Amino acid sequence: MSWWRDLPAHEPFGLATLPYAVADLPGGPRVVSRIADHAVDLTALARESGRVSGAKPADTNAEGANAEGANARGTNARGTNAGFPGASWDHPSLVPFLDQGPTAWADARAWLQQILSSAHHDESVARSLIPLSSLSLRLPFEVADYVDFYASEHHATNVGRIFRPGSDPLTPNWKHLPIGYHGRSGTIVVSGTDIVRPCGQRKGPADPTPVFGPSIRLDIECELGFVVGGGSRLGEPVPLGATWDHIFGVVLLNDWSARDIQAWEYVPLGPFLGKSFATTISAWVVPMAALEAAHVALPGQDPAPLPYLAGDAAYGLDIDCQVEWNGSVVSRPRYREMYWSPAQMLAHLSVNGASIRSGDLFGSGTISGPEKETRGCFLELTWSGAEPVTLDDGSTRTFLEDGDTIVLRATAPGPDGHVIGLGDCGGRILPAVPAC
Amino acid sequence: MSWWRDLPAHEPFGLATLPYAVADLPGGPRVVSRIADHAVDLTALARESGRVSGAKPADTNAEGANAEGANARGTNARGTNAGFPGASWDHPSLVPFLDQGPTAWADARAWLQQILSSAHHDESVARSLIPLSSLSLRLPFEVADYVDFYASEHHATNVGRIFRPGSDPLTPNWKHLPIGYHGRSGTIVVSGTDIVRPCGQRKGPADPTPVFGPSIRLDIECELGFVVGGGSRLGEPVPLGATWDHIFGVVLLNDWSARDIQAWEYVPLGPFLGKSFATTISAWVVPMAALEAAHVALPGQDPAPLPYLAGDAAYGLDIDCQVEWNGSVVSRPRYREMYWSPAQMLAHLSVNGASIRSGDLFGSGTISGPEKETRGCFLELTWSGAEPVTLDDGSTRTFLEDGDTIVLRATAPGPDGHVIGLGDCGGRILPAVPAC
Repeated sequence: MSWWRDLPAHEPFGLATLPYAVADLPGGPRVVSRIADHAVDLTALARESGRVSGAKPADTNAEGANAEGANARGTNARGTNAGFPGASWDHPSLVPFLDQGPTAWADARAWLQQILSSAHHDESVARSLIPLSSLSLRLPFEVADYVDFYASEHHATNVGRIFRPGSDPLTPNWKHLPIGYHGRSGTIVVSGTDIVRPCGQRKGPADPTPVFGPSIRLDIECELGFVVGGGSRLGEPVPLGATWDHIFGVVLLNDWSARDIQAWEYVPLGPFLGKSFATTISAWVVPMAALEAAHVALPGQDPAPLPYLAGDAAYGLDIDCQVEWNGSVVSRPRYREMYWSPAQMLAHLSVNGASIRSGDLFGSGTISGPEKETRGCFLELTWSGAEPVTLDDGSTRTFLEDGDTIVLRATAPGPDGHVIGLGDCGGRILPAVPAC
Repeated sequence: MSWWRDLPAHEPFGLATLPYAVADLPGGPRVVSRIADHAVDLTALARESGRVSGAKPADTNAEGANAEGANARGTNARGTNAGFPGASWDHPSLVPFLDQGPTAWADARAWLQQILSSAHHDESVARSLIPLSSLSLRLPFEVADYVDFYASEHHATNVGRIFRPGSDPLTPNWKHLPIGYHGRSGTIVVSGTDIVRPCGQRKGPADPTPVFGPSIRLDIECELGFVVGGGSRLGEPVPLGATWDHIFGVVLLNDWSARDIQAWEYVPLGPFLGKSFATTISAWVVPMAALEAAHVALPGQDPAPLPYLAGDAAYGLDIDCQVEWNGSVVSRPRYREMYWSPAQMLAHLSVNGASIRSGDLFGSGTISGPEKETRGCFLELTWSGAEPVTLDDGSTRTFLEDGDTIVLRATAPGPDGHVIGLGDCGGRILPAVPAC
């Protein structure tokens, strides 16, 4: 009955991964982990193992956690329940767990790995497992502020060539700072949510005035999203060396983009309706602790970044992504080729004193490499529609058609030859509303 | 003892205004209203008048209200407690009240005006009054998504001339859609909060590479902020005619802006760190119901807007603002000169299917008129620093110095010659952090 200790190294959700999600379970939605195709009811497992009492625990983390410096609460000595995050799992959101900070996150992971690895707890573990096929997963946390970066040099160069022909493809600031902007938190949805084709204004070169209607250039952006835990005080930057204490984990993120709406609206204040209709994230958040074997050097930064962006924390991640369009793999972006590190993005985001909160989410921007088959959006992959892609069924595509389904998937190297899986990030396009 | 019925018409917080805020009161922070220099403890008053029971009411609105179409709950018949929003006031936030929708908002206002106008309740009212001088006010609601628009033609034209000399000052899209972008919700603070001077990258024309340090061109933007109540479903636009059912009220808003950081970063994805360090809003939210006498026609839109932006709901507001710099009035922006209506902003924001939620906030953008003395930011008022302003003490200013205090104030015409006051929006600049 201890099949979870006999999983092959290529299983992406073995004991080296242990991601978190929020599932609808009897008794209410709460935090779960995952082994292969089973969810682990963490609240049940913690109770079975005696780490939290059977009574429903009071929520002591719901308010004020960010303002008070949540990390201080994660430093209780191991071996007592006081610092054990079990109680924070009995919630319909990861935010109370995120509030507890890096020591509690490490404690929780160590406890879970130990329980799953020891025959002593086999019966408890078996009772806490639920087949994923019987579960519905929710948005794993209330997204506080959402920032989307633009950290791939290949992507920014391609988009610059397409959107601003005749200018330098990279703007003068691009290699000095990780460019980013705020997106709409309230329209971030969990993998599997259908996406209604957005309506809006567009104006092509041949249109004398803008026209209104459904987007005809609906695109994706294959990204990673980084989930922030713990807060900072307004006015106090998070230094580069402290950033990873606030980056709890990673999701796959599809920044759905209506290129025609975006092209008409984005000068001078940036993308707005071309992006704000929906952003999809995977239901599973993979903790950064699972990705230690995936740390890699950045491909190189020239000119050297300013001191607040420089330091050992500025590393990259060796994560291989793939983009499936109606089941056909059309691109394989590699995260290790990104120019800016996640640590640099968070240090930059807060260097002006902007405070961060548990539930903040920042996206990497489209992941694109130098080869055509590693471009992470269809604007680039089809070169603005000039070079259609052919799917496995023989049909061709430039931008998304109604009924199309996109799934992003990713894996990374884990310890001892194990594979670390990221959660799938999928969505299907529904037709525009009739009023459009 | 019924002094609140004998207030002069020029009192900005008489019975025609009745704004809402959240105050720290014995028993916990909760929603209050205001008469002159007193807060009204609405929870106490509702209990005294028998409209809610003495027991602390359960919160039935905390979750899922947006997704369920909150407005439906505001339609209970008057005269029963079922639809009376009293229970939603015993919270440290306006969000439960915002969730109840326009019928409940109207019921609450009618009840409060009736109670305050009738001698029958004088003793109850007197017991519910607390001098504002003894109270601390909080951020009145958790800001969900924050969008800032750019709705003044005079402001956009001036900024275009300053930031993009040699180009048309208005971009080609400006008169076809209300340009906007998302800002940082987590750094919106209540009036009276000190603002730490932000640090960041800037690059002047004479700098060969960007330099890092405290902003040396720290500015304000005098705006109105519109507070959204009730939600919409993802994928379903809010039509122009329904927008005012979702605009609960208005605050004064100061969009603090570091012009040097903004100028270097904002191409191509828009303002980010130049804005995200702090945005101040007034503690008092004035309901739109108090501003019915302030409805005015827009100054005129040419070309005619697309159909989704056209209709009777697209009116303006006759609100006079003033900007005080260390106590000297340096500008008097007039809201009635804004090009785009708040209704158009909300219809545009959601036309792509983006959902809205209680607690969403959208700013108008800087309010500027054609005369120099009506410009709502110092970038314009001093023409990028070339024309300093002289304060009453004889000192001169271009941008903000450490220790400077800014207060925004505003009034509007009310019924029968009464004046409607908006809440003050103030903040003081503290020096940058030492690490900067």
